[in-house]
Amino acid sequence: MSRTLHLNAFLMGVGHHEAAWRHPHTDPSRVGDVRHFQELARIAERGTLDSVFLADGLAVGPAVRHNIQAVFEPLTLLAALATATDHIGLIATVSTTYNEPFNTARKFASLDHLSGGRAGWNIVTSAQSREAWNFNLDEHPAHADRYRRAAEFVDVAIKLWDSWEDDALVLDTAAGVFADTDRVHEVGHAGEAFKVRGPLNTPRPPQGRPLLVQAGSSPDGIAFAARYAEAVFTAQQTLADSQAFYAALRRATTAAGRDPDLVKVLPGIAPVIGGTEAEAQALAAELEALIVPEHALAQLSGMTGIDLSGYPLDGPLPDLPDVTSVQAHQSRYQLVVELARRERLTLRQLIGRLGGGRGHRVVAGTPEQIADQIELWFTEGAADGFNVMPPLLPSGLADFVDHVVPLLRARGLFRHEYTGRTLREHYGLPRPASSYATRELVTA
Amino acid sequence: MSRTLHLNAFLMGVGHHEAAWRHPHTDPSRVGDVRHFQELARIAERGTLDSVFLADGLAVGPAVRHNIQAVFEPLTLLAALATATDHIGLIATVSTTYNEPFNTARKFASLDHLSGGRAGWNIVTSAQSREAWNFNLDEHPAHADRYRRAAEFVDVAIKLWDSWEDDALVLDTAAGVFADTDRVHEVGHAGEAFKVRGPLNTPRPPQGRPLLVQAGSSPDGIAFAARYAEAVFTAQQTLADSQAFYAALRRATTAAGRDPDLVKVLPGIAPVIGGTEAEAQALAAELEALIVPEHALAQLSGMTGIDLSGYPLDGPLPDLPDVTSVQAHQSRYQLVVELARRERLTLRQLIGRLGGGRGHRVVAGTPEQIADQIELWFTEGAADGFNVMPPLLPSGLADFVDHVVPLLRARGLFRHEYTGRTLREHYGLPRPASSYATRELVTA
Repeated sequence: MSRTLHLNAFLMGVGHHEAAWRHPHTDPSRVGDVRHFQELARIAERGTLDSVFLADGLAVGPAVRHNIQAVFEPLTLLAALATATDHIGLIATVSTTYNEPFNTARKFASLDHLSGGRAGWNIVTSAQSREAWNFNLDEHPAHADRYRRAAEFVDVAIKLWDSWEDDALVLDTAAGVFADTDRVHEVGHAGEAFKVRGPLNTPRPPQGRPLLVQAGSSPDGIAFAARYAEAVFTAQQTLADSQAFYAALRRATTAAGRDPDLVKVLPGIAPVIGGTEAEAQALAAELEALIVPEHALAQLSGMTGIDLSGYPLDGPLPDLPDVTSVQAHQSRYQLVVELARRERLTLRQLIGRLGGGRGHRVVAGTPEQIADQIELWFTEGAADGFNVMPPLLPSGLADFVDHVVPLLRARGLFRHEYTGRTLREHYGLPRPASSYATRELVTA
Repeated sequence: MSRTLHLNAFLMGVGHHEAAWRHPHTDPSRVGDVRHFQELARIAERGTLDSVFLADGLAVGPAVRHNIQAVFEPLTLLAALATATDHIGLIATVSTTYNEPFNTARKFASLDHLSGGRAGWNIVTSAQSREAWNFNLDEHPAHADRYRRAAEFVDVAIKLWDSWEDDALVLDTAAGVFADTDRVHEVGHAGEAFKVRGPLNTPRPPQGRPLLVQAGSSPDGIAFAARYAEAVFTAQQTLADSQAFYAALRRATTAAGRDPDLVKVLPGIAPVIGGTEAEAQALAAELEALIVPEHALAQLSGMTGIDLSGYPLDGPLPDLPDVTSVQAHQSRYQLVVELARRERLTLRQLIGRLGGGRGHRVVAGTPEQIADQIELWFTEGAADGFNVMPPLLPSGLADFVDHVVPLLRARGLFRHEYTGRTLREHYGLPRPASSYATRELVTA
């Protein structure tokens, strides 16, 4: 196959539907059991998926009353999954706003070493004021300031991963030389937000650098992705929107001087799978009926930054401010407002539509119908693959792997077995050379 | 047995002797192989040891030329070991000077959840200027400032671990109530160094709080340990010094209003084990001969903060400044200076004495002789147990577990099997109640 579909399993508690934990097919007590996540990773690996991914937020608010709360921090959980799997990539979300680049570069290097080259970093700038309050601040830094810090943060991290050249480890026991310090470099970064001398305190990771993933789709987010990202997670409701995003990202990537084929775009898809279309629709309706409206409205208020609790559920979404004034998650805000207006949804209907994927696309149908949608978007310039968000876990992931993946394989769209060893190899991306590797090696 | 010996395996690369990686019994390439550490943890667990422990530093300097460098970050490595073991405690070093309390509290909660209650935190304030340079600073903060920040840092972490009461998770699927938000508390901390609203974004960890461990033995360090520590690692060269430290720490703990029996003191011991005393001495000599003198002198310069490279190896340690002017690792500085003066050592001899344990006590002998030393210190008020630092890994740990531990068991000093489930239970320490758990539960 010339162009290969890429599939990531987005692992979230016992399912992506906000009421998943209330459904009889899940056991919410397993959200704190590492064996649950080991099982999920092994199911994804059975399906030869490229990677698993964990989102993250650095605060908990009143929403925890009605919705499941993650128990594990992504990097520690993925380290535990690394030793329970052999092939699948491991992508962790870490915020550039509330961490230091030295610690972050080092932890991802550690995960990459632990997993034999399977680490990926979903770079986020954090979106809630509630997170700022846990990190000595009274308010969340502005959108543009967060992205400026993020860019410098990633610059520093890349220098640190590169600071040990690949051949710096000598291990010459006879001479007593462990590392060739001529090939271990101070990075001497001094910028607006960070001053970091380096080198990193670990040899270069197996992948050189972890896979860099990004998920913000605002103008700032696209500019950031064009410059740094190797895979992009995005929420897109329609084929046309996703095609427009895909084309815009490729243009921006080219303008940034990078090959757009080396940036893989993965829209979210929440597949509600049934043996028949009616069964799939029944499962979707069953889940929607389990939504707690006051909770969903509070979530929507958080997503839009507007308190919607006073509005009638069966009335329309009220007029909201222009997206450019929003300091939180701009692209998701715009998506929600457009969805409600385009389809003239009441608040109750909007809540139902968002319950399955928080703005990501929900597709209910048979395995064939879901495979058709994946193939359509993949062949029509809307996606290089998908960020798969099963409504129920583990059952929804098992259904996807056992019933949708075989169809994608049969159509020649997806691998039958792993052919690469590292996450970069799964995504068909090169291993970057160290920027410090300037010396010609004259000895063969 | 009324009073129980506690044993921790301090895991460091392929051994604690600075030349371990050059010895034919080790394979230095395994320092980056997670299976090496899984093997070490399983050996320690075979010996029913209380815990394994990883040290840490946030910089690498020129010493990496001649000495092995850790590849893994402690928390990610211990997460990977959690799923490879069932009983043994997992203690990670994390610096309070170069991290944020929210992130740190959260990662330890995650490790505690992952391991079913086996997490411990070795609280350090970091000791090198080289570390400051990786975190936006031109120089390392002063000793007293670091300890003041550390105390506030731990105060915040404790509030965060307590912020979810034990019974806050309701999981009422019928009513749609996941957590009882009346039992999830903002912590509202506003102090000199930190402003953290909370609550933590994870339910209370299985142990309530991870085991708190501390390793600085300066006056600031002892004051800190008296207030917070539940286990103390310490470097002591002689029985008399360790007895004095043990008594001083108990007095300080009592003065701080805590029960001194709930603070376990574990001096370091580097056991060089031989079938006969001559075999043990031969192994010690073999290791000493592998030391690279220029490297060892550079290490000693780092430990004392004084450049010793100009001094003759066969001359004495030159006069050094008073310990109170030292901003780095004060207690280790004092130990080194006293060792050199007490035994009138040349620089070369001092380097040989420090090579086995960086200031920790080295005991070369038969398993019986090592068990005798452990029993002597344990019964004579110098130790509650030991931080075991094998010169070679894994062989030195296997020798300790297979030859010394059975003697300690036969003498009634050490457990034959694990009787507890959590790290706190192994150390005989209580599970702390949440400081927010003020409500009487009137329903049975």
